[in-house]
Amino acid sequence: MTAVTYELIKVCKQSGARLGKLNTPHGTFETPMFMPVGTLATVKTISPEELKEMGAGVILSNTYHLWLRPGEDIVRAAGGLHQFMNWDQGILTDSGGFQVFSLSDLRDITEEGVHFRNHLNGEKLFLTPEKSIAIQNALGSDIMMAFDECPPYPASYDYMKASVERTSRWAERCLKANKKPETQSLFGIVQGGEFEELRRQSARELTSLDFPGYAVGGLSVGEPKDIMNEVLTYTTPLLPDNKPRYLMGVGSPDSLIDGAIRGIDMFDCVLPTRIARNGTCMTSNGRLVIRNAKYARDFGPIDENCDCHVCKTYSRAYIRHLVKANETFGFRLTSYHNLYFLIKLMECVRQAIREDRLLDYREAFFEQYGFNKPNARNF
Amino acid sequence: MTAVTYELIKVCKQSGARLGKLNTPHGTFETPMFMPVGTLATVKTISPEELKEMGAGVILSNTYHLWLRPGEDIVRAAGGLHQFMNWDQGILTDSGGFQVFSLSDLRDITEEGVHFRNHLNGEKLFLTPEKSIAIQNALGSDIMMAFDECPPYPASYDYMKASVERTSRWAERCLKANKKPETQSLFGIVQGGEFEELRRQSARELTSLDFPGYAVGGLSVGEPKDIMNEVLTYTTPLLPDNKPRYLMGVGSPDSLIDGAIRGIDMFDCVLPTRIARNGTCMTSNGRLVIRNAKYARDFGPIDENCDCHVCKTYSRAYIRHLVKANETFGFRLTSYHNLYFLIKLMECVRQAIREDRLLDYREAFFEQYGFNKPNARNF
Repeated sequence: MTAVTYELIKVCKQSGARLGKLNTPHGTFETPMFMPVGTLATVKTISPEELKEMGAGVILSNTYHLWLRPGEDIVRAAGGLHQFMNWDQGILTDSGGFQVFSLSDLRDITEEGVHFRNHLNGEKLFLTPEKSIAIQNALGSDIMMAFDECPPYPASYDYMKASVERTSRWAERCLKANKKPETQSLFGIVQGGEFEELRRQSARELTSLDFPGYAVGGLSVGEPKDIMNEVLTYTTPLLPDNKPRYLMGVGSPDSLIDGAIRGIDMFDCVLPTRIARNGTCMTSNGRLVIRNAKYARDFGPIDENCDCHVCKTYSRAYIRHLVKANETFGFRLTSYHNLYFLIKLMECVRQAIREDRLLDYREAFFEQYGFNKPNARNF
Repeated sequence: MTAVTYELIKVCKQSGARLGKLNTPHGTFETPMFMPVGTLATVKTISPEELKEMGAGVILSNTYHLWLRPGEDIVRAAGGLHQFMNWDQGILTDSGGFQVFSLSDLRDITEEGVHFRNHLNGEKLFLTPEKSIAIQNALGSDIMMAFDECPPYPASYDYMKASVERTSRWAERCLKANKKPETQSLFGIVQGGEFEELRRQSARELTSLDFPGYAVGGLSVGEPKDIMNEVLTYTTPLLPDNKPRYLMGVGSPDSLIDGAIRGIDMFDCVLPTRIARNGTCMTSNGRLVIRNAKYARDFGPIDENCDCHVCKTYSRAYIRHLVKANETFGFRLTSYHNLYFLIKLMECVRQAIREDRLLDYREAFFEQYGFNKPNARNF
């Protein structure tokens, strides 16, 4: 028995999207779902109570960052990440692989692992599949991710093939290194860039290891959206129906819907909170830059179609004032709204699957949001 | 009828401190009370719901800052400050005088008002008693403060005497300028530095104008604590018993108790939130610098004697981690705790007055806090 299991409830007859349930040691959550990112054991500016209020189920935390600060031994001594940060629902931790490749300039990949430098102080560090899993076991997340290589985009076929094969070997080492499979489930990560053959090879090698769940990695790294959708279209059918599928690092509203349509169950991204801290809001009518002068005397809500606490309580004029004055509370409000927006969006997606009308929902949402316009400004 | 009235409930037989009620258009609040500071229409990092949860009654906002950002016309258009920031309890606004004198290097005081420069962009500004009241009327605070001069400490007797007399003339102009005395009450500010004769003159001149309340200004500006206590000892008896007395800009725990003992009813200060943003916490055992390495693995609460949400939920180790990583949520937690600490302290002070034992309470609090130690580190 694995810690995390997936139940398929139904497939949308119109779109093929899956409605399911993710059972974890910290609760059961409906999918497709969006997971807010709490990099350093906090979803920036937001409290756990607020996350619950907005309906967040599973949140993501970053192994690399927690390894450096405060250190996994402190989190373990606190009783694990759930207790450390006061979050009694699901937690997924990534492997650190993405940060090693995105934050560190000096890195050296060997079969054993990756040598690189701490992005905070330049200190030399070495991360291996075993080390990543040991840290994640110390953190005590419900879902752990296998340590993989995240190749840059674009990468050559030969580079990508070698990387995929190493990622498979590392995945096997990760599985063996997991000391707590009964309480912490390890997901494998399908790589292969935009090469269908390599995605097939990666999926074949990983599914042969029988992970409790699978991620599609290496997307949303700079490639055009139609390539992402194309890769998903041929990759998700390679994954077993009875396991959850997680599209890593994707959080723009159009991609959440298009991913669900291609059989994805889980998403995460820093996008909603990162743009919030710049004063950009997601609304049913598209992006809204709250700093704009035209909102100075606008006493309406961020999004007239949103029923979140922020939209029911505060005006654009007030939030604009706070954001322009660099007041933390302004970023609390925009972060809260954006997270709520995506969580609510996924609720609507699930309802549309239930009613076999996700393509209709997509059409209406894209139209109102403005994604259908030529040169639509996305996130 | 004035907007704000004061009812004296009882005088502590042991200390002479006053237990009272402040009636405002936005609720009735017991005194002595501590008012959190929400400079720019937000108590930094904290929501209005959290302020209510911790028992805050009246908060203070700064006229000068709101005049510059977002501008009082926007606040008026929003329906006033209460509505703009979603705070349905009491609001006190200062006059801008203190900021003009503390933030601006280039200022020129005339009988008409003060010429100075915007601290954000250097623009030339002119603030008069009439202008300050017009802004405060636009903000719609329950309690407005008269525009006064805040002389530096120390100042000569002759300078202070001229300043006191000008402040009295400005106070009269402020009273005349108040367009909404039935919903917004104007408090006069007794100045005079450490000169008893000038405090007497200022109190005499201001009480002859019959304000609905009086502040003691020009303290906590760098003078030793015993001078502040001495000034209060001879100044508060000069003020009418049936009006509230407000000691401006004072928020260290010892001074709140010592002020109450000398007949003060209201206090405000940025201290609890400002030190919180540096990771310093007030506790029943004295100040606690959460960044200290010794708290890295301390899974106890900030203050074992505190029953606030933060102390019931989060550990020193977690808060230290957040503060060191510069995570906003850490500053939310320390700010919440410090505000709660002072609000709870005032609740204890009121209970001690009720039971005629405020001097005993002071002794026990000072002993535990460490104020009785030689060279005690204060805030």
